Amino acid sequence: MPQDPIGVWLIGAHGGVGTTSVVGLAALQRGLVDSTALVSALPQFSRLALPNWQQFVVGGHDIRATSFAESAENLLQVSHVLDAGHLQKCSRELAKWDKNIQRGTLQNVGKTIESLADPALLETRESPRDTITRIQSDLQSFVSLHRLRQLVVINVASTEPPFDVATLPTSWSELNKQLGQPRKCKLPASSLYAIAALELGFPYINFTPSLGSAPAAICELARQRGTCHMGHDGKTGETLLKSVLAPMFAARHLEVMSWVGHNIFGNLDGKVLDDPLNKKTKVTSKDSLLGQILGYHPQTLVSIEYIQSLGDWKTAWDHIHFRGFLGTPMTMQFTWQGCDSLLAAPLVLDLLRFTCLAQQQGEQGLLTFLASFFKSPLGVKENNFAKQFAMLEAWAEKT
Amino acid sequence: MPQDPIGVWLIGAHGGVGTTSVVGLAALQRGLVDSTALVSALPQFSRLALPNWQQFVVGGHDIRATSFAESAENLLQVSHVLDAGHLQKCSRELAKWDKNIQRGTLQNVGKTIESLADPALLETRESPRDTITRIQSDLQSFVSLHRLRQLVVINVASTEPPFDVATLPTSWSELNKQLGQPRKCKLPASSLYAIAALELGFPYINFTPSLGSAPAAICELARQRGTCHMGHDGKTGETLLKSVLAPMFAARHLEVMSWVGHNIFGNLDGKVLDDPLNKKTKVTSKDSLLGQILGYHPQTLVSIEYIQSLGDWKTAWDHIHFRGFLGTPMTMQFTWQGCDSLLAAPLVLDLLRFTCLAQQQGEQGLLTFLASFFKSPLGVKENNFAKQFAMLEAWAEKT
Amino acid sequence: MPQDPIGVWLIGAHGGVGTTSVVGLAALQRGLVDSTALVSALPQFSRLALPNWQQFVVGGHDIRATSFAESAENLLQVSHVLDAGHLQKCSRELAKWDKNIQRGTLQNVGKTIESLADPALLETRESPRDTITRIQSDLQSFVSLHRLRQLVVINVASTEPPFDVATLPTSWSELNKQLGQPRKCKLPASSLYAIAALELGFPYINFTPSLGSAPAAICELARQRGTCHMGHDGKTGETLLKSVLAPMFAARHLEVMSWVGHNIFGNLDGKVLDDPLNKKTKVTSKDSLLGQILGYHPQTLVSIEYIQSLGDWKTAWDHIHFRGFLGTPMTMQFTWQGCDSLLAAPLVLDLLRFTCLAQQQGEQGLLTFLASFFKSPLGVKENNFAKQFAMLEAWAEKT
Amino acid sequence: MPQDPIGVWLIGAHGGVGTTSVVGLAALQRGLVDSTALVSALPQFSRLALPNWQQFVVGGHDIRATSFAESAENLLQVSHVLDAGHLQKCSRELAKWDKNIQRGTLQNVGKTIESLADPALLETRESPRDTITRIQSDLQSFVSLHRLRQLVVINVASTEPPFDVATLPTSWSELNKQLGQPRKCKLPASSLYAIAALELGFPYINFTPSLGSAPAAICELARQRGTCHMGHDGKTGETLLKSVLAPMFAARHLEVMSWVGHNIFGNLDGKVLDDPLNKKTKVTSKDSLLGQILGYHPQTLVSIEYIQSLGDWKTAWDHIHFRGFLGTPMTMQFTWQGCDSLLAAPLVLDLLRFTCLAQQQGEQGLLTFLASFFKSPLGVKENNFAKQFAMLEAWAEKT
Repeated sequence: MPQDPIGVWLIGAHGGVGTTSVVGLAALQRGLVDSTALVSALPQFSRLALPNWQQFVVGGHDIRATSFAESAENLLQVSHVLDAGHLQKCSRELAKWDKNIQRGTLQNVGKTIESLADPALLETRESPRDTITRIQSDLQSFVSLHRLRQLVVINVASTEPPFDVATLPTSWSELNKQLGQPRKCKLPASSLYAIAALELGFPYINFTPSLGSAPAAICELARQRGTCHMGHDGKTGETLLKSVLAPMFAARHLEVMSWVGHNIFGNLDGKVLDDPLNKKTKVTSKDSLLGQILGYHPQTLVSIEYIQSLGDWKTAWDHIHFRGFLGTPMTMQFTWQGCDSLLAAPLVLDLLRFTCLAQQQGEQGLLTFLASFFKSPLGVKENNFAKQFAMLEAWAEKT
Repeated sequence: MPQDPIGVWLIGAHGGVGTTSVVGLAALQRGLVDSTALVSALPQFSRLALPNWQQFVVGGHDIRATSFAESAENLLQVSHVLDAGHLQKCSRELAKWDKNIQRGTLQNVGKTIESLADPALLETRESPRDTITRIQSDLQSFVSLHRLRQLVVINVASTEPPFDVATLPTSWSELNKQLGQPRKCKLPASSLYAIAALELGFPYINFTPSLGSAPAAICELARQRGTCHMGHDGKTGETLLKSVLAPMFAARHLEVMSWVGHNIFGNLDGKVLDDPLNKKTKVTSKDSLLGQILGYHPQTLVSIEYIQSLGDWKTAWDHIHFRGFLGTPMTMQFTWQGCDSLLAAPLVLDLLRFTCLAQQQGEQGLLTFLASFFKSPLGVKENNFAKQFAMLEAWAEKT
Repeated sequence: MPQDPIGVWLIGAHGGVGTTSVVGLAALQRGLVDSTALVSALPQFSRLALPNWQQFVVGGHDIRATSFAESAENLLQVSHVLDAGHLQKCSRELAKWDKNIQRGTLQNVGKTIESLADPALLETRESPRDTITRIQSDLQSFVSLHRLRQLVVINVASTEPPFDVATLPTSWSELNKQLGQPRKCKLPASSLYAIAALELGFPYINFTPSLGSAPAAICELARQRGTCHMGHDGKTGETLLKSVLAPMFAARHLEVMSWVGHNIFGNLDGKVLDDPLNKKTKVTSKDSLLGQILGYHPQTLVSIEYIQSLGDWKTAWDHIHFRGFLGTPMTMQFTWQGCDSLLAAPLVLDLLRFTCLAQQQGEQGLLTFLASFFKSPLGVKENNFAKQFAMLEAWAEKT
Repeated sequence: MPQDPIGVWLIGAHGGVGTTSVVGLAALQRGLVDSTALVSALPQFSRLALPNWQQFVVGGHDIRATSFAESAENLLQVSHVLDAGHLQKCSRELAKWDKNIQRGTLQNVGKTIESLADPALLETRESPRDTITRIQSDLQSFVSLHRLRQLVVINVASTEPPFDVATLPTSWSELNKQLGQPRKCKLPASSLYAIAALELGFPYINFTPSLGSAPAAICELARQRGTCHMGHDGKTGETLLKSVLAPMFAARHLEVMSWVGHNIFGNLDGKVLDDPLNKKTKVTSKDSLLGQILGYHPQTLVSIEYIQSLGDWKTAWDHIHFRGFLGTPMTMQFTWQGCDSLLAAPLVLDLLRFTCLAQQQGEQGLLTFLASFFKSPLGVKENNFAKQFAMLEAWAEKT
């Protein structure tokens, strides 16, 4: 049964998360791996008319001159993950998809990301609107070349410095006017990609803590164009555990006095987060959920540090100090040793499939049923993972 | 506003959990401590007509000759928990309640528990029915002496050796006949207490993994007498975490390959569990829930060892080895350093209050809405803590 | 047998380490506690003519208006350490010694320490020499009042901001001249106390990472006056473990790729270290030994953070990532949960006893045989704890 | 410069430790890897005339029908260690050395090891002397075929059940007589290999906790033949840490109240240790050193459990509960995640080189200077790792 091709457009395609997602997709298409770690492959979602792996074609933007094979080889050598045999068997797909990767934009991404970029990119002097137009041209060429029925844009690029949303106009028409004024409009790349996608009616998913489609004006744009979007910051490890464990402390009325989380890892994202500005965006995203879940604010501490030798293996140590009955202090500690890209990649593929189906069903605006995938789900106050996951299951049941 | 007194009858009253529950109750009555760790004090249950702390009068059985003050002093000295000042302020209540503690039964409790007992108790030669009659006489005297409106019997005694339920008749009339035949009926103490309570219409709660009211024949008795009961094995630490973390692995489709849990602690319960027979009952209870939650059976290992220096501080180390995307093995470890009695005591008081209200509302048979409090909730297949807790909240909403 | 009294003068006497040392000394004098944790009470030192506990009289300086009883009560309430019964039995000694505590100096201690001080102290405008003269007057009054045979000055005050030694003259005569010029001489309090003590011939021990007697000019002063001194920074927990574990990696030729150490604690020292300037002094001290032991410099990370709920309980998590045979990466992690003051106090008492004996034997200059007690032992390159301890044993053997 | 070939004969050659040692040796011969983890390659031993890697030729015994390539592939697939590229480059050596592997003996190795064996071996009915003669014939053929100047026999086979040494005669002449009487002499395989080697004057090293050359009669044999031997049980991970950390607690006079160590791993050795009999031998070896180092016996607990998913990755969790000053209880925990074979293999190669040199220098009897390599060093009371390592350095200095 021939099926219409669907495009997935990855911002930061050649990064760790992008590469692992693409290698995984190729391996799934070839039947080399099972569906472990894919939420969309769970029995409770088997009834849904989700697209199958064969339908997907990969394209994207990147700011570095590299290839999927080279990035994958790096993961293999440094972090001892991925399978050399699989990579070889998928080399044709990887090479084919490499041709769909276009040069991205460095607008307001901060000095650290700039320092990683292909120097050629740094010379560009575009207005935000020029950049958007260029991105849209890339997206449309990809759609027409591959005769795509749908296209989903997913941001898996490194974290940008924080941006003060309060400085932005809240209506799309106002923001749209500013896009032609480079001096006035300092929107970061993640938001330009979002605008580019949404204006064309393509869904946009922000897997990073960067600004993306979060501003009210961009949310308005999505609704105007009748398309959907969601974000932000994929919930893969330590924060996932917080959203699972904190509800337990709340349900048992145990008072969390302090929650300390130290994260160390050594991949490219880690290098970017070593810049205090970029780190701030990330830490804020990791740290906000406890207060909502607990109903009060314990002392918290979150650190993320670049330790080169760890490669893609993110190790988190969390120390939770809580008061029990009669004021007795007790302690829980955990260490989480997960491979960052391999925790993120299946969620990227899940978001892709769920978003495709949601768009086909005409859903518009924020896809709040996807809250369980994000550290800071847009438009959703609930941070209790079990309740977020129940939202996904409820959506699946009524679909 | 004067209110009717309610009795709480603790089997194993002078043990660590019993003593801490009683000290906590006295401290709550005197307003010395806040409601931390009491589930029944959470906002979502504030609407319920739960009994207040002032209403409760304590009685119970024990097999050792000691007192609440002595047991509490031991916790203070060995484990550095409880507050010397509080104990002094509550000494009158503790001494008063000590007078309500009767000598318990050693029927089929196993050699290790026998070795801890007051030697006088060992000489007794009663038939099971004789024992039940004696227990019932104790319960009725307590009720009439204190003019109690309700009485709830809660088992917080040490774990008995395992018992093969398949050897029991499934109807109450058959089991009842056997109670007069000591050679034929080898029911352990926990079940004799359960029968004694339920026959008189008093609710029975089994906070331990011992047999208690689990046999079908005893469940039938509870329904016949129109009373309620629940069990078993309070979910306080490592198993609570399993019931919180395993659903996360399931929801993310991560394959748990092995789950190892080592527990060490040094209180009297630990000494009893050092007997391989008693330990078996406990380990089975701790180990059964993963298969239900995950839908498959990873390799598991649970150990509980007596390490004297730890006193009441139970330390658990769990090592969870799981497969992520593309078959990548990853690891989560946690250590839980909790004070066993102080984790259990508030749950005992919560179960007391919820059971009082349920009985007042005419609920009969198993109180399945209390599943979140137990490692192996009778009559409930669900082991996902978040879903169990939702059952409690749903019950509260419709009450 | 009556013995001559010996004075111990504590800089920062009322702090956590000072108070615990003094409580411990009083408890030892009364025979309330055994000698656990006292190095000087080990069998290999039993032959030495070390002073006994009864000989010691306590005096000191502090910048806060408090008392030993109040500080001890705080440790008891917040950190659940020390024994209420012992404190009561020692209350007379504590009150008596409180009378020997004089107001200290805030010269160049930094804003964070100033903020903790008795406001009265802030108004003082003394030249460094004036301060030294005032300190010496305090020391001499103490000696004459108690007819002391010896006096040892030990710095257990909070960590000062870093000081650039390169700005100091290297000869004592030059430095001495500057002491009258407040604008030119910015020596911190720790060094003024050192000069005061050494000029009078009293030994000075620096248990903190502050500057103290480290400058070459002050070392010269010590030799001129024929007295002895040592420092700095007591090696109590995480760094002790580094000096024990790193030699193992070296001896097995395992390559340490990265060593990450995160420390959290909540006492007053923690509050002072929350100031980035003061923290820098500490982190430098904790981080320097690995390179010396390993012979190369792995990537290291040391953090110390103030987490209020922990009180005096310092928890360290260390993650050591190393390469084994055939380049295989492996991991060791440890957590250390120690009570900071109670780890430090016995070492303070040991240093006191060993220093007394060394001075009696006429030792002058740096007491390098005490290296095992310090994170950064002055005049000693060796950081391998086993070898440092062998130095102590060798000194004892030839004494 | 052509050099005389030296043979290394591995008992259990195709096991994990054997295979990794052999792969490592081949990789060293080809210059594919650096000397990380090789103690004998440390600067302090560079002056010694140790044999170089090119001189070694591998032979051995095994009880399973497999090959180095197959065993190595298993490590690669299951445990993600070893480098596929290296294996390919070394395939010629591995295949060549496979030809030198003879069928071993199953005498008194216990049922679990028997169950792993090539069924053909089980039918053999030899007397102990017959077996020794057969082994000696294998050794002599190997020596003459390869014109070996030296041959060192090293036992890296799985752990045998415990053996009661008290049942053995203490003189070699008595024991020798028993070897012809199968009913009387129940010596395990490890000792038969030892006798075979020593009788021919070949050094024997026991890297396992099996009996080997430990009996007094076999020590006498070694001295009679003027050859050397040492054992037993390579100190690779958790026990190494005990021998490093326990001296610290002793030196600081901290009282270890309890030391709990839980080990989990999933290789073939783990399967053998899953048999309670074999496990007992191992646990005894791991548990004995604390008492010697501390001078008293804290409560200890050592477990070793087979968790299949871990493969060769041995994870140890140790919980050390200690009393500090004023009786304050504190805690240290560590987790060690090491690859068992890759920790053992370099030590095997080091022992090989040091033993060759010792024999060339005419050393006879127990090579006690090798104590730092063993959990239970024969003829050495010292278990403090730092002191054991100093013995090795002292030997090197005077050599």
